Amino acid sequence: MPVNMNAAEFENRLSKLAGLSLKVGVNLQQGQELIVTAPIEASALVHRITRIAYRQGAKFVTCLYEDPEMIHDRFAYADDKTLDYAPEWIYRGMSGAFENGAARLYVVGPYPDLLSGVSTDKIVRAHTAMANASEVETRFTSESRINWSTVPFVTDSWAKAVFPDLPAEEASQQLWRHIFDATRISCPDPVHAWAEHNRLLDTRRNFLQHRKFVALHFYDGRTDIRVGLADGHRWVGGTVVAANGVEGICNIPTEEIFTCPHKDRTNGRVFFSKPLALAGTLVDNLCVEFRDGTVVSVKAGKGQEIFEKLISCDAGARRLGEVGLVPNSSPISRSGILFYNALFDENAASHLAFGQSYAACLATEFLSANTPEEAGANQSSIHIDCMLGNDSMSVDGISGTGRAEPVMRGGEFVI
Amino acid sequence: MPVNMNAAEFENRLSKLAGLSLKVGVNLQQGQELIVTAPIEASALVHRITRIAYRQGAKFVTCLYEDPEMIHDRFAYADDKTLDYAPEWIYRGMSGAFENGAARLYVVGPYPDLLSGVSTDKIVRAHTAMANASEVETRFTSESRINWSTVPFVTDSWAKAVFPDLPAEEASQQLWRHIFDATRISCPDPVHAWAEHNRLLDTRRNFLQHRKFVALHFYDGRTDIRVGLADGHRWVGGTVVAANGVEGICNIPTEEIFTCPHKDRTNGRVFFSKPLALAGTLVDNLCVEFRDGTVVSVKAGKGQEIFEKLISCDAGARRLGEVGLVPNSSPISRSGILFYNALFDENAASHLAFGQSYAACLATEFLSANTPEEAGANQSSIHIDCMLGNDSMSVDGISGTGRAEPVMRGGEFVI
Repeated sequence: MPVNMNAAEFENRLSKLAGLSLKVGVNLQQGQELIVTAPIEASALVHRITRIAYRQGAKFVTCLYEDPEMIHDRFAYADDKTLDYAPEWIYRGMSGAFENGAARLYVVGPYPDLLSGVSTDKIVRAHTAMANASEVETRFTSESRINWSTVPFVTDSWAKAVFPDLPAEEASQQLWRHIFDATRISCPDPVHAWAEHNRLLDTRRNFLQHRKFVALHFYDGRTDIRVGLADGHRWVGGTVVAANGVEGICNIPTEEIFTCPHKDRTNGRVFFSKPLALAGTLVDNLCVEFRDGTVVSVKAGKGQEIFEKLISCDAGARRLGEVGLVPNSSPISRSGILFYNALFDENAASHLAFGQSYAACLATEFLSANTPEEAGANQSSIHIDCMLGNDSMSVDGISGTGRAEPVMRGGEFVI
Repeated sequence: MPVNMNAAEFENRLSKLAGLSLKVGVNLQQGQELIVTAPIEASALVHRITRIAYRQGAKFVTCLYEDPEMIHDRFAYADDKTLDYAPEWIYRGMSGAFENGAARLYVVGPYPDLLSGVSTDKIVRAHTAMANASEVETRFTSESRINWSTVPFVTDSWAKAVFPDLPAEEASQQLWRHIFDATRISCPDPVHAWAEHNRLLDTRRNFLQHRKFVALHFYDGRTDIRVGLADGHRWVGGTVVAANGVEGICNIPTEEIFTCPHKDRTNGRVFFSKPLALAGTLVDNLCVEFRDGTVVSVKAGKGQEIFEKLISCDAGARRLGEVGLVPNSSPISRSGILFYNALFDENAASHLAFGQSYAACLATEFLSANTPEEAGANQSSIHIDCMLGNDSMSVDGISGTGRAEPVMRGGEFVI
């Protein structure tokens, strides 16, 4: 529990987080079924979610608990040739529930060092099998066919990764404090704070969508890069209206608005402002140069080799799949912490992602007449977010006629 | 952990229980998938099961953890009209896995007082919905289409119910000691002890099957009852060969061999030797008289009213659905404890069950030419086991010509 916070106060905040995840995140409807996934360590949060969900009129709440020790022991003891198998039956079952109207909540409690020592090859094989088996099920959320959300829980393993020098208990308390700040649970009225926050995100998203910029220009003296945007790109962020008509927030926390770059139209040099945690290795002081969308040079203080290996894994890996804007004043950014988790680190600063683009970042109207390839969307087996935002970053939107319009100054939105 | 047993010894026994459940119970095959259900409190046993299963070559191990607090909170907070719903999607998913060859292991950790205070009507509605939703899935085990087993785990709630006067820690230790005895884990070589035990059960089962008795006569001076057996009855107990060809033991522990009475052919009086735990109420000193298969009088020291209400709930409830033989020397019987759980109490003494009969207790050949009704099998929505065995009980098998042959004397088998 957080520093300077007694047990009752901690439990009160945990209940607020549960309530927020249902009210603002999933926006669970009266009579709707709910499927939660969570590590067993997060049962205290799941119990609060369950209770609130039933009080809100949930038809049924199921939690499919994840057991990290079972995941670990599979890699440690299973026959190697079984690693290409994944239990499709469970995903097929869940798809059935979503077809019948169930909502989905992911409780994310990371175990950063769970598979340290396991060969990448094994992890990739198991991951690929799982991705194939869950392909249909995943589309219910990735395509927002149902209302869904994601909410964090501090595991001991995660706290230790973020604060390796603190005793376990204190590390957990510290991380909870940051999580409660980042999720606006520390605010007197979190639901109201989120309403305000969503209004801002929605306004900025709509502004950028309306402007139809052809590129974004990032510059701060060292970084000077022009990121071309995909034709028919769509800005995403803030509230999402799912295909079932329910409006929610898919990630708690979320600070970004993002869209799809054109895979051939990025030029210039970028210095990434935050270190990048890649499979247990830190990459820092990373500087990358682009020509016509593709990486032509890489320099890093640490981890250059692993980064180069990663962006060489397929043709799309050295091109961009996402550009995201986050103000420097966001609570996550202010914490100054590397969370070792995309849900947070991606929301800490403006970022570029190497690899796969998101289907949601192309306008439906555009896609009715064009393929994603024609739009300039990138394809890859990887998607790696790298932060370039900082408190002196300027961002201009470039119009079709070449006119530059201020979007961010000093790391903050000016729109 | 058990009294006079250090942590290492306890963990060693828990590992032996895990190994026994896979080797002797499920008899998990190389390359076979395994689905476990268990309360989250039992994760220490599940982890051992997982590790051993993978070492034995399991293709994949899934544990669907049950969370008693979520079950409780449904009854406490859900809208009343949602109680007739059950998540069929999860059972449909599991059925898919069984179709594709998965095995099943139930880790049974009871919560006897979880729903105390909830109205019986609510529980029955939820239970009926669950039974309907899981009908297809349940048949994979009830009809032994796959290899499956059941293994106990001591929850704090269970220990408290069995030893209400002991401090929590001590109650748990005591119950574990009895569980390890009852499951033969205390034996130097549990797997060998089970091989011996199964050989005995199989021999007795085969003996009784071969004899084709038309009735069993129980008498000890007070009890004097003749239980007619169904035409084409089949004796069940000991090892089971599932339809997939794998031989295992469905219940750990198991001590009984049992079959199907004829619903119209029981006559006489029975004094039940052990109290009966019914929905939180104890029924003791129960004495019941039968005429032509049906109960004609009931007397009890305590709980007479609830027992009479129960056997009046439908037409089959006042007739017998099972007769089971258990020697007085079985470890469970010797413990002298009421476990408040059928997996144990049913195996503590010879018993008669009121209500529904088991399909497995009629011979397949017989059923190819006759209906279960023609065999004399009983139908009811209840199935309540009542113990009549004691150390002075005699049981005779009665042949078609009326000849009596000793089966048990002084509570022990003589066959």
